[in-house]
Amino acid sequence: MIKVGIVGGTGYTGVELLRILSQHPEASLRAITSRKEAGMAVTDLFPSLRGRISLKFSDPAEAELGQCDIVFFATPNGIAMQQIRPLLDQGVRIIDLAADFRIQDVSIWEKWYRMPHACPDLVQEAVYGLPEINRDRIKSARLIANPGCYPTAVQLGFLPLVEAGIADLEHLIADAKSGVSGAGRNAEIHTLFAEASDNFKAYGVPGHRHLPEIRQGLSLMAKQPVGLTFVPHLTPMIRGIHATLYARLTSDIDLQALYEKRYAGEPFVDVLPKGSHPETRSVRGSNACRIAVHRPQDGETAVILSVTDNLVKGAAGQAVQNMNLMFGFPETMAIDGAPLVP
Amino acid sequence: MIKVGIVGGTGYTGVELLRILSQHPEASLRAITSRKEAGMAVTDLFPSLRGRISLKFSDPAEAELGQCDIVFFATPNGIAMQQIRPLLDQGVRIIDLAADFRIQDVSIWEKWYRMPHACPDLVQEAVYGLPEINRDRIKSARLIANPGCYPTAVQLGFLPLVEAGIADLEHLIADAKSGVSGAGRNAEIHTLFAEASDNFKAYGVPGHRHLPEIRQGLSLMAKQPVGLTFVPHLTPMIRGIHATLYARLTSDIDLQALYEKRYAGEPFVDVLPKGSHPETRSVRGSNACRIAVHRPQDGETAVILSVTDNLVKGAAGQAVQNMNLMFGFPETMAIDGAPLVP
Amino acid sequence: MIKVGIVGGTGYTGVELLRILSQHPEASLRAITSRKEAGMAVTDLFPSLRGRISLKFSDPAEAELGQCDIVFFATPNGIAMQQIRPLLDQGVRIIDLAADFRIQDVSIWEKWYRMPHACPDLVQEAVYGLPEINRDRIKSARLIANPGCYPTAVQLGFLPLVEAGIADLEHLIADAKSGVSGAGRNAEIHTLFAEASDNFKAYGVPGHRHLPEIRQGLSLMAKQPVGLTFVPHLTPMIRGIHATLYARLTSDIDLQALYEKRYAGEPFVDVLPKGSHPETRSVRGSNACRIAVHRPQDGETAVILSVTDNLVKGAAGQAVQNMNLMFGFPETMAIDGAPLVP
Amino acid sequence: MIKVGIVGGTGYTGVELLRILSQHPEASLRAITSRKEAGMAVTDLFPSLRGRISLKFSDPAEAELGQCDIVFFATPNGIAMQQIRPLLDQGVRIIDLAADFRIQDVSIWEKWYRMPHACPDLVQEAVYGLPEINRDRIKSARLIANPGCYPTAVQLGFLPLVEAGIADLEHLIADAKSGVSGAGRNAEIHTLFAEASDNFKAYGVPGHRHLPEIRQGLSLMAKQPVGLTFVPHLTPMIRGIHATLYARLTSDIDLQALYEKRYAGEPFVDVLPKGSHPETRSVRGSNACRIAVHRPQDGETAVILSVTDNLVKGAAGQAVQNMNLMFGFPETMAIDGAPLVP
Repeated sequence: MIKVGIVGGTGYTGVELLRILSQHPEASLRAITSRKEAGMAVTDLFPSLRGRISLKFSDPAEAELGQCDIVFFATPNGIAMQQIRPLLDQGVRIIDLAADFRIQDVSIWEKWYRMPHACPDLVQEAVYGLPEINRDRIKSARLIANPGCYPTAVQLGFLPLVEAGIADLEHLIADAKSGVSGAGRNAEIHTLFAEASDNFKAYGVPGHRHLPEIRQGLSLMAKQPVGLTFVPHLTPMIRGIHATLYARLTSDIDLQALYEKRYAGEPFVDVLPKGSHPETRSVRGSNACRIAVHRPQDGETAVILSVTDNLVKGAAGQAVQNMNLMFGFPETMAIDGAPLVP
Repeated sequence: MIKVGIVGGTGYTGVELLRILSQHPEASLRAITSRKEAGMAVTDLFPSLRGRISLKFSDPAEAELGQCDIVFFATPNGIAMQQIRPLLDQGVRIIDLAADFRIQDVSIWEKWYRMPHACPDLVQEAVYGLPEINRDRIKSARLIANPGCYPTAVQLGFLPLVEAGIADLEHLIADAKSGVSGAGRNAEIHTLFAEASDNFKAYGVPGHRHLPEIRQGLSLMAKQPVGLTFVPHLTPMIRGIHATLYARLTSDIDLQALYEKRYAGEPFVDVLPKGSHPETRSVRGSNACRIAVHRPQDGETAVILSVTDNLVKGAAGQAVQNMNLMFGFPETMAIDGAPLVP
Repeated sequence: MIKVGIVGGTGYTGVELLRILSQHPEASLRAITSRKEAGMAVTDLFPSLRGRISLKFSDPAEAELGQCDIVFFATPNGIAMQQIRPLLDQGVRIIDLAADFRIQDVSIWEKWYRMPHACPDLVQEAVYGLPEINRDRIKSARLIANPGCYPTAVQLGFLPLVEAGIADLEHLIADAKSGVSGAGRNAEIHTLFAEASDNFKAYGVPGHRHLPEIRQGLSLMAKQPVGLTFVPHLTPMIRGIHATLYARLTSDIDLQALYEKRYAGEPFVDVLPKGSHPETRSVRGSNACRIAVHRPQDGETAVILSVTDNLVKGAAGQAVQNMNLMFGFPETMAIDGAPLVP
Repeated sequence: MIKVGIVGGTGYTGVELLRILSQHPEASLRAITSRKEAGMAVTDLFPSLRGRISLKFSDPAEAELGQCDIVFFATPNGIAMQQIRPLLDQGVRIIDLAADFRIQDVSIWEKWYRMPHACPDLVQEAVYGLPEINRDRIKSARLIANPGCYPTAVQLGFLPLVEAGIADLEHLIADAKSGVSGAGRNAEIHTLFAEASDNFKAYGVPGHRHLPEIRQGLSLMAKQPVGLTFVPHLTPMIRGIHATLYARLTSDIDLQALYEKRYAGEPFVDVLPKGSHPETRSVRGSNACRIAVHRPQDGETAVILSVTDNLVKGAAGQAVQNMNLMFGFPETMAIDGAPLVP
């Protein structure tokens, strides 16, 4: 049984971590911090967890995070980088669900996130927590940069193709659609029900922060720089990401076989039978990523469809998957629940 | 480990049973029948269950249901009553999720369901599967009439009040709102997304089949006939029932204490703190029923709010709760998962 | 052609006023104020109005509202009462879409709205803008208190019954459900898409500000004090109110005939055929109120169903209906568009 | 005043035609047919039209369509081609909202629609009813093939780019998302609320019937064969299409200026300011198509965003636009209503 802390537990990734960890047989939740809600019972904010969690939110200054085995940062960007060094020094392992340690090139990070980085040395040490690529490095890591929601769905969708180097890697396209929970539990007008319901829009077309993260990942897979057009959209559902990926093939390969082989041993990546169209709800509340590969009219353009739950495989579930790997628990522990359909 | 069969597994209660039973450590799913989909893998119809269920739908005529310990009927009304007798004779225990055995007065049943009853004797034997009332009788029952979705939410909401006899029992009002999954997985126009979304309506105001079921239950609690106006509504959400109950108090009692005391030992009924307003999502995907009691402006009208997930506590979850009781498993086994929020 | 101003045009009632007035052949929109968005083109905030409105939001201090024939206040409660006196003095007529002038008893208003009233004398002058009751007084009014959304649907639903005095008026019940736009265009967490979607809840059961407004209206109709339990709910749709009303009948009258007769000449109240269940979408975007009357199982409880679009008949549409009456335009001018279905 | 008939008026394009035509000052609706609903008042099926339409559905065999000036076919594919010849012979002009006359190459049509064509000669005569391309030919046409919903949004989005010939026309990509009303008012499981809500999926990736229609249109614009990958998706909203279009530029042109110039005189195409992201709701219920053009990071890939209401500009509204052109009415008559937001 390990001791677990959460910093910043009032957002959607926070409550999702709580949901998952409250069912984890090897994790004992010791502290969850929130400056704003300090002193309030977690279940007053999240009645869905009544009977499952007895903790109160504690003030970050008072929480004894240093005594935890692992601390999750479910905070806005820029917080973890300021707080983790003393924890690491005390032997605490860290999983940051924000973006502070995702981009290896600090100058790129600083450009997209518009702030100076507080600890570039730790960026170098951090392991990008996508188990399908970095499983071994994750096991021994002190500091995990948990991937973004779009980057998870897009990278898993492109991975076999890009690793195999069988497409025009200068002109990849990722047309991604996200449920509204991806925007976080923040009081903003554009994500109000009366704004986001019965509506569909693209956003961030000139440039979205997940672009450099995805490009970095694809380039590492390809072992060469990769060109990517990435267009995110907001779709009126709570959870779920659907990535529709386009690549011009340069080789006449059996895509279905390629994908099935690459993901044969992966517990959370499910390559669907030929001709399938995965639905986001088929992974709702679960850590699965389901993928279908198409080549319409046997042309040269491959179309890959990849779906995840943005709060699970795209955030809290993947974080727990990483924790499981780090502490030698079964990789699927507490994240093997069935999707909720309908 | 018991052997379990499901008759009629292609509807929403069917797939919800599959979701729950696939995670039940003491249940081995042996057969699931569907005349229409016989031969098709369950996961072809419900990809969300990929990797969890390897069964195919089987023809009802060929399924060896007689070798099961228990068979769930997730069929339309009128089917179970025609098929269960030979199974009972073979020692199989039965849980009917439809309405065939819910109404003790067969003439009333025949009036509301517009068909002759096939086995009135079994109606007398059947136990109404609301554990909060009939726990002991359920344990030894051969045949369970699993309550309807509205009746579960409404009866649990009224139970302490009616048992205590502290209200005008001739004029109870239940204003109930259901998610669209309550209408079933049937191809009908009025439940299409483009009809039911961004819309709200009452239906069945002149008379709904759950009215006599609720009235029977409340009358048994009250030990006298009860008068009820029941108005169901369709609300644009997938899962969830919200019952708003009105009763004129005849005694100046502490409602909050009454409810807390009555449900103190119940694993699935959660009386919220004074002043609360339960949300349907706070029970989404879970077997909980959350209740809040109000007495606006200290007047004589009590307002009770009761929420459930219509597919879990209102159908499949309660059925598994009954199964757990019948076979001596822990009552919460496989139905203790946390609600999915957001 | 009259000159029209709007104070506070960035909320949902504001943009709905803009939509309607931009199509009104006798209204010329001269100014729309917003302290926060002053200088911004209206269509930058509301691109749906591109090509229809060329105004910019202006600073309240600079808008020449005194030169308008009529000014609508689409502001939060408590603003209009501080600003209208000089406008009235300049001969401008006023329609307040907030609550400042709805409650005749200022002490009750101050209790529910928790602020001192700035101009009790004007409260006495104000005419409650429900044309179905006050049509003649509206025509000559200087100051209109435009009714609240719930009060419109509930009062129109109860009106014939209460006027006729054929029910137990001490124990009326109004179970009302509103779309989320009723909460306004304010950045708040509880109305985020990820909170309010796929969810249903009651709120304000201990007491909602529309309760005294409705009670006042019903008491005036009844010519005696009326007792009311009012429970509002939030339902996951953008627009629409559905009021389900319960009253115990004291007389064996033909309700259908009563309602049809009372509303025979009303352009915006539609009594549906016997046995109907009005849907909120049947009035989406329109100024209609559709009503159905039921008496389940010929019992003593009447159930009346009343639907409106909360932003039209419940706010901006009714305001324009009042304006039409005040200036002698055809009552339906610019608010006779067909509902948008599906 | 012209006499108008509608064949097949019980679907979503049918009721939308009714909504629009009931407000058209120059159109007198004389007959609306439905084999299934013959004899039923239109308003019994569509209560939203109460007070606006007094017609009953009539049997197709008995409707006197030959006396109409124009007949709209809002029927499934394959019906109009069997019924229009005698009407044309009587001088009736025809607008087919289905696909029978959209594809000039009959062999391609027969391949995609899997039936023999009943009147190839009329295909040659038919004018493709996209006013932004064929305005003059539409004015004098006897027979209009009203464009499909996806083809309208995609072609208008690509038009200036393709006409200008400044992109790699062999590898265009159209990633399109549609509201569920696009699937029609048909009782099917996959478009039930409980299936399509809170869910997102692609469909028809191997090949969708709108692919050849779009390819034909783009090829005519380009005056050369065009290569297109077209992926449609179902998104949980009622109305709206969002097309995200990708093209690799071959010339360093000012896209914004190109689009603004091309559509300068078009009443229904609105090119948004640079950097915009059109929302589908900004055209909800209106005949507008709003377009934004992007060139992310000044790279070689252009991203064009195009939104329409699939039932208006994508179906009934465009049909009325064509009717207006055919009969010399103002092009915007009855289709100039403001979008409904929120």
